[in-house]
Amino acid sequence: MVIGSDTSVVLDGQILGKPTDRADAVATLRRLSGRRHEVVTGVAVVVAGADGSVTTTSGHEQSSVDVDELTDHTIEWYVSTGEGDDKAGSYGLQGAGGLFADRVTGSVSNVIGLPMGRLHKLCRIAGVDLLDFGSTS
Amino acid sequence: MVIGSDTSVVLDGQILGKPTDRADAVATLRRLSGRRHEVVTGVAVVVAGADGSVTTTSGHEQSSVDVDELTDHTIEWYVSTGEGDDKAGSYGLQGAGGLFADRVTGSVSNVIGLPMGRLHKLCRIAGVDLLDFGSTS
Repeated sequence: MVIGSDTSVVLDGQILGKPTDRADAVATLRRLSGRRHEVVTGVAVVVAGADGSVTTTSGHEQSSVDVDELTDHTIEWYVSTGEGDDKAGSYGLQGAGGLFADRVTGSVSNVIGLPMGRLHKLCRIAGVDLLDFGSTS
Repeated sequence: MVIGSDTSVVLDGQILGKPTDRADAVATLRRLSGRRHEVVTGVAVVVAGADGSVTTTSGHEQSSVDVDELTDHTIEWYVSTGEGDDKAGSYGLQGAGGLFADRVTGSVSNVIGLPMGRLHKLCRIAGVDLLDFGSTS
């Protein structure tokens, strides 16, 4: 089984990807400050059967995130942690970004980067039940 | 500084605490199945100053979680992982519970157990800026 997934942050119809550098991260966080944005993740699942068959399914998940009003001090502090360097929208809700980007409407795992509920449903369509993998530890 | 915090899951005006045993966890998840419930965390912050002063602040955060329709198979599988044994409502959104309890309205960290945004604000009121603690690693 192969799972492919990527997440984009969308504001005013524009996709905000990973920051090109820290100045770009600062600019992105200034744009997100005090506003609601959308987070969209596309997921594709490919399952190769023992009989040579290949089943492909795909879908997407969308959530909204409300970001607090951010001072320059908060933005500079956060960017300096480096946490957002490799993240769409220049922040991670699951880390220190949760101090100011914590309010979600919709799937939480989607915002973190892999929508678990959606993945679970897509895998089932492709004939794989994630629960069969047993222990989660 | 001392931070005290506890989280309750509320359904139909009734508080669902940590499960007493796994049969109780199964019963709780059956109740949560296919419905929205509330998650409430109370937080208190006590700061002792170098001058002997003590500042106390407290507050709470509330979020909603929508749980998928759960089959007996899913409930039995999940309870057997033990993930929910020590959690209010018998599930953890941040783990395998995210497969079926992933849709939140409100603070995400509140559902996990410590509302970061609320804590940040309460600490500020008590004169402590969490950003001053520097690196998040």
